[in-house]
Amino acid sequence: MPVFDLLRREPDIRSFSAGQAIFIEGQEGDSMFAILDGEVEIRKGSRTLEVVSAGGVFGEMALIDQQPRSAAAIARTDCRVTAVGTKRFMMLVQQTPYFALQIMQVLAERLRRNTVS
Amino acid sequence: MPVFDLLRREPDIRSFSAGQAIFIEGQEGDSMFAILDGEVEIRKGSRTLEVVSAGGVFGEMALIDQQPRSAAAIARTDCRVTAVGTKRFMMLVQQTPYFALQIMQVLAERLRRNTVS
Repeated sequence: MPVFDLLRREPDIRSFSAGQAIFIEGQEGDSMFAILDGEVEIRKGSRTLEVVSAGGVFGEMALIDQQPRSAAAIARTDCRVTAVGTKRFMMLVQQTPYFALQIMQVLAERLRRNTVS
Repeated sequence: MPVFDLLRREPDIRSFSAGQAIFIEGQEGDSMFAILDGEVEIRKGSRTLEVVSAGGVFGEMALIDQQPRSAAAIARTDCRVTAVGTKRFMMLVQQTPYFALQIMQVLAERLRRNTVS
């Protein structure tokens, strides 16, 4: 998964225990995350929108539209993630068109999944 | 709407009459569209997902992930759109990071709208 290859070497690595919130719904968001190991649940209220595994990314929406977090991200297992802040994200978009396209693909895939029925 | 400003001068202008299909669900997609005037309904089966007005864009998902059209686009009124093919889209992503970011914003906005409840 190429978008992950770009992000796996980011220096800001954070560890979370199973059950811990990485961010909560409604919070201001200044980072996106790539999962090095473990699983993260994206949850809106009591509903699980998605389970993201190692190699996956989440939390990019708040960087794109500067809106509060649309859902919570909860560590489903113990996990380690890299965090990418707004400035670094904008730099990646500007300098690595492939990164931008990959992020678009992540969003498009979610949209297709969310509008199946 | 800046993404529209970039696309409004594209030379491939197409006209559709009210009720006419611009594309149908399941079709291979090789273009995205920006609406110059009129309204377009994005429809999945009998369900209306979105009504896009002048200045709005649609059909970008098939360019991003090369999957068949996830929904149909039907002219709701007589309308004129500019069409942007895959190569031109990729060129815009590569040469205009702001365009990439705007497309991400369109996708993020749809995702937020689709996961409100």
